[in-house]
Amino acid sequence: MTANEQAAVTVLGLGPMGRAIAAAFVKSGNHTTVWNRTSGKDTELVGLGAVPAADPAAATVGADLVITVLSDHASVHAVLDPIAERLRGKALIDLTSTTPEESRELGEWAAARDIAFLDGGIMAVPPMIGGPGASILYSGTGEVFDRFRPDLEKLGSADYFGADTGTAALYDFALLAGMYSMFAGFFHGTAMVRTAGVTAASFARRAAAYITAMAELLPAYAAVIDSGDYADEIQPARFHKPAFDAIVRASRDAGVALDVIGPVKNLIDRQIADGRAGEGLERITEELAGNRR
Amino acid sequence: MTANEQAAVTVLGLGPMGRAIAAAFVKSGNHTTVWNRTSGKDTELVGLGAVPAADPAAATVGADLVITVLSDHASVHAVLDPIAERLRGKALIDLTSTTPEESRELGEWAAARDIAFLDGGIMAVPPMIGGPGASILYSGTGEVFDRFRPDLEKLGSADYFGADTGTAALYDFALLAGMYSMFAGFFHGTAMVRTAGVTAASFARRAAAYITAMAELLPAYAAVIDSGDYADEIQPARFHKPAFDAIVRASRDAGVALDVIGPVKNLIDRQIADGRAGEGLERITEELAGNRR
Repeated sequence: MTANEQAAVTVLGLGPMGRAIAAAFVKSGNHTTVWNRTSGKDTELVGLGAVPAADPAAATVGADLVITVLSDHASVHAVLDPIAERLRGKALIDLTSTTPEESRELGEWAAARDIAFLDGGIMAVPPMIGGPGASILYSGTGEVFDRFRPDLEKLGSADYFGADTGTAALYDFALLAGMYSMFAGFFHGTAMVRTAGVTAASFARRAAAYITAMAELLPAYAAVIDSGDYADEIQPARFHKPAFDAIVRASRDAGVALDVIGPVKNLIDRQIADGRAGEGLERITEELAGNRR
Repeated sequence: MTANEQAAVTVLGLGPMGRAIAAAFVKSGNHTTVWNRTSGKDTELVGLGAVPAADPAAATVGADLVITVLSDHASVHAVLDPIAERLRGKALIDLTSTTPEESRELGEWAAARDIAFLDGGIMAVPPMIGGPGASILYSGTGEVFDRFRPDLEKLGSADYFGADTGTAALYDFALLAGMYSMFAGFFHGTAMVRTAGVTAASFARRAAAYITAMAELLPAYAAVIDSGDYADEIQPARFHKPAFDAIVRASRDAGVALDVIGPVKNLIDRQIADGRAGEGLERITEELAGNRR
């Protein structure tokens, strides 16, 4: 591979995300080899021009860059441990959802075996891969990021978060936690409005616009969190409490379970019980971090 | 008041939201009378040109439109019950956070006293009032909405949801539930990334963009919910489970409490335990609505 050539890429793991990634590479003209533990997942990819491999060892032959997109950290080791020798001198990127601790462990594993390693966190669902909305966060060996950046940008925007292999996963999970919480809140809201005959589609249009408008408030919340001064004269916890109590009552009246919003109400109640009724909602961050004093 | 005149407005309740509403009217040139249970909240408004009133009865003299922005449903009755006679023939809009059931009760109370009533749900924080991002939902007497619409639009966009007085509050709370869940998820994520030395400000920029991108998926989720067919071949619950388990482990590793995301994980686990691993995350809506079969 010279500077102007496209990397020969191997994708190990062909779940929905692995398939989307392999498809983006093969459509971009990269020589793309694919493998999956169970058969039959590569049919469409092979039709596009991907090369099927019988096992992980065969899949790495000729690869510049090996990418794992497996179900979890244990399966990454199950697949890579037996072929570690073959990866020596190659670049490895793990896009499996792993925790920061697991990413750091794999980084140390790779370093001990002379494998240049980058951990990645995918901020997209499979249909978004290769499109403008997809974003992948990377941390680990900076040289791997620099060398393969043009290839990685075929999957979506690519950002490097430094040499600590665990940072990308931490960032990834922090964003996902926000996303899943937002989705859960939407499902709760949908269950509420359906009791008045409102369709989910009608609610979703307004909810998407509202969530987008409210997301613009996050930087202001962040400035307060970074300052450590949570005093809030406009909308302290005591301002939110009646609204939140009313949401809980309305949910009960509508027969909607409190799994999603009950715990958030409890956090507000606990903040007020801690004597912090005059501080902003952002202080929940400290409560979650264990800083209740 | 003729068609081209601006309504004479009375605002009862001068918390942060009541003050923002009164300020928007007085700045728009409406004759604006203000009252608050405790004194000293009207100083700035009177400086802008609002007329202070000594009590609710005095505040309604000459008003075309009386708006209540109080702390809860009980305080609305505490303020309005003694002056019901004075409200006869006037228009009343309650912008207090009340539940749909409470809104319906107040609607019946008003109808029995010949008061034209509209309930409103404010989708904004006080600083947004009067700006392009503010939205207020109304339901109840359509004539009140039609007549005062030009005045109501001085507060933000105004939408009418029909004669069932409770619908605006239901919609309001459904959107707020989504907002609070999203905020809670952001606080959780912020607590996570801070453990790697990332500032809340840095995280917020990316989180706001990501939440905005993910909010675009809500209409697709809604289409599935409306269809009632939750089968999902791309990202069923079994796809989300490893990611979610990893987020929970990473949160624990980082010392971040599970108050916010633990319950969402439990909902996914319960869906899988119910034999619905191949159905989408949207099915949480049915779980919350009590439709587990």
